[in-house]
Amino acid sequence: MAGTDKSRAVEDAGGSGAVSDDGGAPAIVLIGSQLGENIGTAARAMLNCGLTELRLVAPRDGWPNEKAVAAASGADMVLDGARLFDTAADAVADLNIVYATTARRRDMLKTVLTPRRAAAEMRSAAGQGVRAGVLFGPERKGLHNDDVTLADKIIEVPLNPAFSSLNLAQAVLIVAYEWRMAGDATPAASLPHGHTQPASKQDLLHLFEHLERELDEVGFLHPPEKRPSMVRNLRNIFQRADLREQEVRTLRGVIADLSNKRRGR
Amino acid sequence: MAGTDKSRAVEDAGGSGAVSDDGGAPAIVLIGSQLGENIGTAARAMLNCGLTELRLVAPRDGWPNEKAVAAASGADMVLDGARLFDTAADAVADLNIVYATTARRRDMLKTVLTPRRAAAEMRSAAGQGVRAGVLFGPERKGLHNDDVTLADKIIEVPLNPAFSSLNLAQAVLIVAYEWRMAGDATPAASLPHGHTQPASKQDLLHLFEHLERELDEVGFLHPPEKRPSMVRNLRNIFQRADLREQEVRTLRGVIADLSNKRRGR
Repeated sequence: MAGTDKSRAVEDAGGSGAVSDDGGAPAIVLIGSQLGENIGTAARAMLNCGLTELRLVAPRDGWPNEKAVAAASGADMVLDGARLFDTAADAVADLNIVYATTARRRDMLKTVLTPRRAAAEMRSAAGQGVRAGVLFGPERKGLHNDDVTLADKIIEVPLNPAFSSLNLAQAVLIVAYEWRMAGDATPAASLPHGHTQPASKQDLLHLFEHLERELDEVGFLHPPEKRPSMVRNLRNIFQRADLREQEVRTLRGVIADLSNKRRGR
Repeated sequence: MAGTDKSRAVEDAGGSGAVSDDGGAPAIVLIGSQLGENIGTAARAMLNCGLTELRLVAPRDGWPNEKAVAAASGADMVLDGARLFDTAADAVADLNIVYATTARRRDMLKTVLTPRRAAAEMRSAAGQGVRAGVLFGPERKGLHNDDVTLADKIIEVPLNPAFSSLNLAQAVLIVAYEWRMAGDATPAASLPHGHTQPASKQDLLHLFEHLERELDEVGFLHPPEKRPSMVRNLRNIFQRADLREQEVRTLRGVIADLSNKRRGR
């Protein structure tokens, strides 16, 4: 399962403190998968999102499968740790809550969730020690109704209704990605500054004044009654750019060199 | 959405404010893609999410590409409408805002967004007639820094840092999926009832009383001082199930038949 040493080793290998503890991550249960390639790409998508527990129910081409290894692009630890089951009921026996992914509506009275909502539920349940699993059916036909019946709830991805059939690994990716995002604290937007410092307002004002002095000299800020709004507009351009200290120095160099050239220096 | 005339969006560009059928969906720009298969699976992922505008910059194996068609699993309209460009600069020339997807940090002062935030921004901008595009680099190396420089902002998927390299189509899927979800109004959770009616509270109380009558007769609700809490617990089980009218009738049949059998009828 995801809380094993193996999983932690992978998560820790990045050396980033931003990685959340993925304890209690759901098991991915692939039922009757037809192509080894798809099992491999699904394993890759899982590991991309920090999931490591793969369960296979009666894969058509047997197991282990060389094509799965080739397609996994290095997600070997997921394939090596995969467990093989004869039936879906066996595969979910030790789990507490099971979700079935379906592309089409079934004539079944069962709650249907978006992947995002299911991920939020799984995150919340994992914190209480609940073990979750998500079922994915064979490539062409999807889950058999009997397998859907094993599940507590259904996950349905709200896709283009005219073209909603997802590749198996793509379906696994969306569930795994939503699981990861539900525990992710990455800022939605950031400006990675490296070792640069933001410009001070004084630096910025000196830049503006330098530019405006030169523009006054060439008569750009004309006529006088329009000067205030022209200055405001120019200043706003550079204000929006969230300039760094070094960038202000670069721009002042640009202004100085253009001006010196003009003066014939 | 499916059915959109894929060639129209570009021809209509020019600030007319005309809203395309897919609500100003972003163009997907694949730069230097190596494998036709990946272009095909990317096209499938796009159409799954209702995106139709594909732009290709110098695909390694030329264009059109039979392997792309085979891998697209029916997303032909995306491939048929794909436009070919020699350079990334040409491919983005008519766009207003461009995002670059990267798996690794660049030494560049550029805002980094999660796919979710970028999708929200693109949805919001599309409403104002802004045309957006998202750049994806070659499979192994990712975008060249010069192509990243073309972009206004960077999209970085917050994945497992030890295994963050996404398959090309998977990267396209995440961006396209977030675009779709940003405009999706599917309820996070629902119980599709079909033609069934919810049970009335009276139906439910009759069911409870029926069950408790039979249980009193066999002495299950014993000792008397525990009867109230046992009854409450049993009722809560069925309350949680959000029963339908027909299901209450089924359960009453179950109780009746079990009881009749016991009575030897």
